[in-house]
Amino acid sequence: MIVNLKKKHRSFKGFTKFYSHNSVVTGTEMNFSTYEPDNKIENAIIWLSGLTCNEENFITKAGVQPLLSDTNTMIICPDTSPRGLNLEGEHESYDFGSGAGFYLNATTPGYKDHYKMYDYISVEIVQILKASFNIKKISIMGHSMGGHGALVLSLNEKELFTSVSAFSPIVNPTKCPWGQKAFSGYLENPETEGGRYDATLLVKSGHNRSDTILIDQGLDDEFLEKELLSDNFIQACDKVDQSLKLNFRKDFDHSYYFIASFLPDHINHHLSLLNK
Amino acid sequence: MIVNLKKKHRSFKGFTKFYSHNSVVTGTEMNFSTYEPDNKIENAIIWLSGLTCNEENFITKAGVQPLLSDTNTMIICPDTSPRGLNLEGEHESYDFGSGAGFYLNATTPGYKDHYKMYDYISVEIVQILKASFNIKKISIMGHSMGGHGALVLSLNEKELFTSVSAFSPIVNPTKCPWGQKAFSGYLENPETEGGRYDATLLVKSGHNRSDTILIDQGLDDEFLEKELLSDNFIQACDKVDQSLKLNFRKDFDHSYYFIASFLPDHINHHLSLLNK
Repeated sequence: MIVNLKKKHRSFKGFTKFYSHNSVVTGTEMNFSTYEPDNKIENAIIWLSGLTCNEENFITKAGVQPLLSDTNTMIICPDTSPRGLNLEGEHESYDFGSGAGFYLNATTPGYKDHYKMYDYISVEIVQILKASFNIKKISIMGHSMGGHGALVLSLNEKELFTSVSAFSPIVNPTKCPWGQKAFSGYLENPETEGGRYDATLLVKSGHNRSDTILIDQGLDDEFLEKELLSDNFIQACDKVDQSLKLNFRKDFDHSYYFIASFLPDHINHHLSLLNK
Repeated sequence: MIVNLKKKHRSFKGFTKFYSHNSVVTGTEMNFSTYEPDNKIENAIIWLSGLTCNEENFITKAGVQPLLSDTNTMIICPDTSPRGLNLEGEHESYDFGSGAGFYLNATTPGYKDHYKMYDYISVEIVQILKASFNIKKISIMGHSMGGHGALVLSLNEKELFTSVSAFSPIVNPTKCPWGQKAFSGYLENPETEGGRYDATLLVKSGHNRSDTILIDQGLDDEFLEKELLSDNFIQACDKVDQSLKLNFRKDFDHSYYFIASFLPDHINHHLSLLNK
């Protein structure tokens, strides 16, 4: 795996870095950012961002650097979709196509050749972490569409990820407008293919984890009722005894100000399991 | 003073807020952001941003919220220039006009009616803090052009500000290209008027402070040699026994990653003097 370092910035006791690489999975150049503490790095957390984001948003806004500065754990933040293509409908809306890869493997014409973000994360980013960064254990987390990605990937690929957490995740995409639009655009048969990419349906159909899934959800989140549907996931986990810690947070919204506020809890959750 | 709250986001134990108001000083609508902890607020720190920034950059990127969340101190981050005008040459370059007010009172035609950022900060923002936020003591800090502003304002208006600090400040603007371009565009007589807005010249001419001036400066800062000229300020302070703590930081650059890394030290510096 050849990764090209494009920029680096000294940050606390480590470096914030920006890389690009030619992705075998997406067939495009892909970008990611990292924070790499000076200590010997053994573990990584994958951060998956939400709609409209790229590899920059989290690493510039969330305040993660001081939380990892003294640890043995790096964070890697991939872009949210392939770039530089011109597929039909790819650049027309904020919630489909560029910036909105939804962490699935597309099967519709055109998209199926590039929009394979599920494999990009679970195969290629994981390989990069192992080959280029010598990482042993990997956890995964994300926000909104990226929270969906973290849940779905960790429920499907249990052994790959040590722990999982999410902020304001889309937990039941087959039942909300964002998910339905994405699945019908990316998947030839959304009804048969969609279950693999829906955290609530995955839990219902027997996918579970032995570790506790940590979720924080703001109660002033404008998308809670229509798009995020947290209660559906709570009920599904409850039915099958999946351990879940879902904190509803009064007054908090869907923004990076919310993420930053509870990021220390999430990082501690992952560090405690990564270093167990 | 009427200030209009435009947006607020719950952040740690407080709110990040965005305001606008009709400025008497600039004759335009001006914007600022704040972080206001839930505790009874008694003190404020004014943050002055650098070239190209507005009221958003610092409050979204620096990670200041957790540092003030449990204190009695808010931070206020004004925009770096008037907006919505169309003066000659105002929007042609990143280092003059919009986004580049340089914290002085302009005297050239057109600019003199609006670009009065020195009075905007030292009179109007101070009045807003006292009238709308019931603030007792005020400290000031900034980055690059804003570091210049913080130094100049605190050296001229000793009694107004309890403490001062700066990241990568332009300490001797009459001797560097950024400052010379700004001063010749904003000031009718840069040679006679410029001294009031040059921290090194101010210290040389007898303006001093009884508290220690705190500065952090990255050694990998691409602007250090040509624009920032830290050594000139060190020498000036040394000659008149102005207490100065200037830390050169190996590997750090001019970015917000640098600011975030040493912001805890700067906030502690201000809090210790504000709460003395």
